[in-house]
Amino acid sequence: MSGNETESVSARPVLIVSDHTGITAESSARSLLAHFGGLFTYHSRPFVTTAQLAEQVAGELRQMQAEGPPPLVFATLTNPELLGTLQRVSALVFDLLGENLTRLEGILGQPAIRQVGGHHDMRDPQQYLARMDALDFTLSTDDGVGKNRYSDADIILVGVSRVGKTPTSLFLALQYGLRASNYPLADDDFASTELPVPLQPFQDRLYGLTIDARRLHTIRTHRKPGSRYASLEACEFEVRRAERLFQTQRLPMQNTTSASIEEIAVGILGYLKRQAQSGSAFPLP
Amino acid sequence: MSGNETESVSARPVLIVSDHTGITAESSARSLLAHFGGLFTYHSRPFVTTAQLAEQVAGELRQMQAEGPPPLVFATLTNPELLGTLQRVSALVFDLLGENLTRLEGILGQPAIRQVGGHHDMRDPQQYLARMDALDFTLSTDDGVGKNRYSDADIILVGVSRVGKTPTSLFLALQYGLRASNYPLADDDFASTELPVPLQPFQDRLYGLTIDARRLHTIRTHRKPGSRYASLEACEFEVRRAERLFQTQRLPMQNTTSASIEEIAVGILGYLKRQAQSGSAFPLP
Repeated sequence: MSGNETESVSARPVLIVSDHTGITAESSARSLLAHFGGLFTYHSRPFVTTAQLAEQVAGELRQMQAEGPPPLVFATLTNPELLGTLQRVSALVFDLLGENLTRLEGILGQPAIRQVGGHHDMRDPQQYLARMDALDFTLSTDDGVGKNRYSDADIILVGVSRVGKTPTSLFLALQYGLRASNYPLADDDFASTELPVPLQPFQDRLYGLTIDARRLHTIRTHRKPGSRYASLEACEFEVRRAERLFQTQRLPMQNTTSASIEEIAVGILGYLKRQAQSGSAFPLP
Repeated sequence: MSGNETESVSARPVLIVSDHTGITAESSARSLLAHFGGLFTYHSRPFVTTAQLAEQVAGELRQMQAEGPPPLVFATLTNPELLGTLQRVSALVFDLLGENLTRLEGILGQPAIRQVGGHHDMRDPQQYLARMDALDFTLSTDDGVGKNRYSDADIILVGVSRVGKTPTSLFLALQYGLRASNYPLADDDFASTELPVPLQPFQDRLYGLTIDARRLHTIRTHRKPGSRYASLEACEFEVRRAERLFQTQRLPMQNTTSASIEEIAVGILGYLKRQAQSGSAFPLP
């Protein structure tokens, strides 16, 4: 996300300026600019916390303006003076923080603290330890290992090789502190519509991932070109059998073909929430 | 991030409504509300893409308003009609998308596409495959394994056990597609101020992580209570030796004590960027 600094001829520069990591600011900018055609190159300037650093960025901004199309500037700067330093150079500053803070002050009837910091709860020691525990657990039950620990899992992702189980599990652990295991379906599992033995005691926390066979073929070919494993025929067979298993066992199922890891993860969270509301014992992050 | 649905007496509800994952909207809301005292409970309603779903959320909103303090609503809804459905129920809707889109239309001289989608580049097949390669690589060189692959690493994090190497490496791979290895310093490495042998050929891509010994003691005690490993004495010794190594070898060094994974990661990206600008051969994400 830190952006590609190599400018192509037609690209419009986007400058992200934050007194913290700038990750949220850049996400917001990318979400907004996804609605427009044309190329954008992102330049991130994190941890801009002093007048001197703001002046430095203002200097870069001036230079960029002199060299090409004026950058779009997205700022999350708590200190209005630092924001002003940029606004004096450019009329194209999007203040993602200040206006909303002012409105919230009115609604909440209290002044904003306006301290640099951000919201990442890794600073809360207990929360941090819980997430690290979740990550340790997830790593120790990745890709079918550690099956004897499934009773401690919040969710167990099930699917064929390369459907997206590992990145989704890690994202769930890192971002939401979920203990997310994953079990790869393999040859032995395709012969039957019964659940694989290690999964049988945990039917209520299984979550099926599936994918378009052609897409799977592309992904596996990238990994092991020309192999039987990557052949379209094998991919079609495995996906068909996996989906049959999910349907027979009435498992929730999500198609990952055109979904980002974030989208898959939010789908899983929604499922867990519905489970919790329907009286299941799942903890929610 | 999906929020704690258990409402405490004094907590103010926050409703996140998005036609996509809502992850960016919730990050923005949390960043803003971190500037205010008091408790907030987050309720996320992702994938609100139809009038019917918007009506359903509006119904929830009405009910929440009837039961307690009116929720703060943060919306990223591309369709103005869906946004209107919420605005008719509440005056406390923060439109994180529409106003900025309108302003961007003016600046860019083109209408916003206003299609639901989001910016996550996992949809770009090549980009997706590159990230999955980075994640595979990172997992295969986690915690000192796969040292024979270090020549393919973008960065190698070095530090004592539990300093934060693994979560940071995984975040760098998942979020930025970096090949991030990590090497744990252990007893053998503390005897000398020389680099451990497997690291010697790669001095220009090493990055030291350190931590306050008391914090390390807390983290290790959580993991292995009462062990020699977790003792404050061991933590102090190891941190001292690790820092001596980083200083002697002139490695970049970041303290993780009160830093989130995101903050550490952005620090590392900044280092890589400076290296690239100074003529080193590092690729940037």
